[in-house]
Amino acid sequence: MTATLSRSAESDLARRIAESALATDGVATSTAEFHAWYAERCRAQVHEVRRIPFDELRGWGFDPATGNLGHHTGRFFTVMGLAVRGGAGPVRQWTQPIISQPEIGVLGIAVRDIGGVLHCLMQAKAEPGNVNKVQLSPTVQATRSNYTGAHGGAAVPYLAHFRAVAPGRVLADVLQSEQGSWFYRKRNRNMVVEVGPEVDAGPDFCWLTVGQLHELLRVDNLVNMDARTVLSCLPDAAPGMPGGDDVAAAVRRSCDPRFGSLHSTTDVLSWITAKHSEIELVTTPIPLVDVRCWRRSDMAISHEQGLHFSVVAVDVRADSREVGSWTQPLLEPHGIGVIALLVRRIDGVLHALVNARVEPGYLDAVELAPTVQCTPDNYTRLDRPPLLDLVLGRRPEQVLFDAELSEEGGRFHHARGRYLIIEVDDEPAAGRDDFRWLTVHQLTGLLRHSHYLNVEARTLVACLRSLR
Amino acid sequence: MTATLSRSAESDLARRIAESALATDGVATSTAEFHAWYAERCRAQVHEVRRIPFDELRGWGFDPATGNLGHHTGRFFTVMGLAVRGGAGPVRQWTQPIISQPEIGVLGIAVRDIGGVLHCLMQAKAEPGNVNKVQLSPTVQATRSNYTGAHGGAAVPYLAHFRAVAPGRVLADVLQSEQGSWFYRKRNRNMVVEVGPEVDAGPDFCWLTVGQLHELLRVDNLVNMDARTVLSCLPDAAPGMPGGDDVAAAVRRSCDPRFGSLHSTTDVLSWITAKHSEIELVTTPIPLVDVRCWRRSDMAISHEQGLHFSVVAVDVRADSREVGSWTQPLLEPHGIGVIALLVRRIDGVLHALVNARVEPGYLDAVELAPTVQCTPDNYTRLDRPPLLDLVLGRRPEQVLFDAELSEEGGRFHHARGRYLIIEVDDEPAAGRDDFRWLTVHQLTGLLRHSHYLNVEARTLVACLRSLR
Repeated sequence: MTATLSRSAESDLARRIAESALATDGVATSTAEFHAWYAERCRAQVHEVRRIPFDELRGWGFDPATGNLGHHTGRFFTVMGLAVRGGAGPVRQWTQPIISQPEIGVLGIAVRDIGGVLHCLMQAKAEPGNVNKVQLSPTVQATRSNYTGAHGGAAVPYLAHFRAVAPGRVLADVLQSEQGSWFYRKRNRNMVVEVGPEVDAGPDFCWLTVGQLHELLRVDNLVNMDARTVLSCLPDAAPGMPGGDDVAAAVRRSCDPRFGSLHSTTDVLSWITAKHSEIELVTTPIPLVDVRCWRRSDMAISHEQGLHFSVVAVDVRADSREVGSWTQPLLEPHGIGVIALLVRRIDGVLHALVNARVEPGYLDAVELAPTVQCTPDNYTRLDRPPLLDLVLGRRPEQVLFDAELSEEGGRFHHARGRYLIIEVDDEPAAGRDDFRWLTVHQLTGLLRHSHYLNVEARTLVACLRSLR
Repeated sequence: MTATLSRSAESDLARRIAESALATDGVATSTAEFHAWYAERCRAQVHEVRRIPFDELRGWGFDPATGNLGHHTGRFFTVMGLAVRGGAGPVRQWTQPIISQPEIGVLGIAVRDIGGVLHCLMQAKAEPGNVNKVQLSPTVQATRSNYTGAHGGAAVPYLAHFRAVAPGRVLADVLQSEQGSWFYRKRNRNMVVEVGPEVDAGPDFCWLTVGQLHELLRVDNLVNMDARTVLSCLPDAAPGMPGGDDVAAAVRRSCDPRFGSLHSTTDVLSWITAKHSEIELVTTPIPLVDVRCWRRSDMAISHEQGLHFSVVAVDVRADSREVGSWTQPLLEPHGIGVIALLVRRIDGVLHALVNARVEPGYLDAVELAPTVQCTPDNYTRLDRPPLLDLVLGRRPEQVLFDAELSEEGGRFHHARGRYLIIEVDDEPAAGRDDFRWLTVHQLTGLLRHSHYLNVEARTLVACLRSLR
């Protein structure tokens, strides 16, 4: 054995993440400095968004043959129709509008050692669909159109660090899906890359510890979806001292495979394989004009009963984006989602109840979702999703995490969900084969690979790790 | 900590597999008994296969509108057209016939403890496309049509053991792709399941140790493709004593993460993610009549230059299949494939050179393939695939494994490849980013998950583990 071969550096990385998670007051940036910087960036990023009729879109239009809404270059994204057959839910056949964006973008967080502590380079970034304009974003959030210059805008800062990465500098790099009811087979490359001391934070950027990000996750609509999904792909922090009776200790034990799990990982993988094998879902892109039960007006494409979402158009005036002013379509969900993970201590080890969920836009039909993920407005009392009533009837002392968080503001208009982690002490899903209790280390193991956990579950994994 | 939670049983399983791998002379079945049984089954399974014109197919026909060749029930499989655009090779746009078989079947090996040693229940099974009729198959090889009874045939023996598996009895359970140039998004569920002492071997079945299967892999056209892919999904054997200078010792060290690897697993996963992100491949099912450069005669659908493969029809008379006599289409490749894995000892640890390969039928465009995988007849001297000449010019002392093995005889007519493992002592792929050296434990880790290794690479992983 010589020095040619690399041994696992995982334990060292886990220790560094643990230290960064403990630095809740910051090192490079104090929490007070962060808030001052963030308030200043919110003021600086002028961003005016106005609903417009479709015929005021510039560069975008409806294809005369298909009715699909797209950009004249064929880039960015297209709103098309999708015919869906099969699945596991009460409705087994439908058509719907959906966003097609086959290009794979990069969502990347650069990390750097500052004062011996790992810091993440976060960006204050305005997006047209955000309820509050500016949110905290990854270092880089680039579509292929961005980095090939289809915008005609400036180069994306820091992107070079994610395009050619030296061996040993990648902490995470995995393709993950996004909302499978709104996007058709959209994936982004989730990356965490370590950079050297020569990398400084530009005016829209700020170095924060993992611990600071954990605190900021609890602030409504602050840490954006892209930042949350990248954070979820980080390895677990080293569990540290496993003692203690509080929930934080149960999370620490859940990060450590030596404490065991209710189901072996082989059995969990077998359950997922069985779901993929059993559930037949056939999805076929169709012209948007062939979608049934949806109507197009001057201002919106909407479901005739007002359910689900609308497609709308906006005019954006900004001064800090790649281009100063543009128009674009956005998908506007109706109602605020309820996205909840039930957790339970089993032998002192925290387990989370995940649901094998079918969505038509997933590359492979089934991904693991939070226990409950729905917009209650879309359901009557009779066809409520399983366990929703348990979530809506939660007692305050059961709630470990509760924040309203936004979905991606570059595609969605005011899309928000109430993200909850709720502790239970019994088995609410007995006899249901579409649910399983997994430990945090099992979830983290799955997150090294593509398409196991959906984007909502990934947010809640990031939130789980923030419990203290 | 009580007994509720399960701890990892992996090391115990690895030890049992290692013991079974050492039992090359068998326990339940001696090697002499195996050969006698196998010869007897070959005689007993009368199986006459005759090429017929398409219009003698019963239950199969060409769709008048699309020209697709399918079964009147819509089941089994369909030969359709595929339009391909993009990729990474010299040809970036083509159309071709391809088999569509969207149902997920089960390939399962039942294992059982006999005399303290793990045994695999293998089947002598005739398939119409096999060059030698009977080959050694998994316990179960069932399409969904099989087990829902679309054949109108008898129930598949032992299938119940794979349909409802008790916790802790699964050794492997993962969806894997099959030939991506011949099948469009075909996947099978690869399962290894432990059964109890009540399970006995029927007349077409035989209990063999892992060591016996390793020996039989070296016999031309004996262990079929389905058996090889399931075997590849087994965990590694415990490495045992890592000492020694021979190649077997280098394989044992390669199974043990403690000996390290040229690239960290995080870097390997990042390389795979980069390939998925970079390579854009658009595949669109089209009517078979719209495929260019292919011609249909009474007897075959063939490429006009005689390249690649033909689609043909056969009449089968058997007495031991679910139904005694039937007709079906088969895909007949032209020429015998060369499928080679270059291996190299780096610091005494065996590494295998895998290629990030694009095939149009993969669910996600790129999978890891052997170093060389091609049919030389399809290439002129000028456009040879990389490293093929190195494989064709191998010296005898470099060859660690060399056998002609068959692809699945239920769909392919006389499809065979020369499978080779060739040892090199330098870097033949310097500067090529589409190749990487991986250890056996890295390959095995990837094989717990779907769609990382293609079916040819999986065969060679099974062969790698058989080196002694």
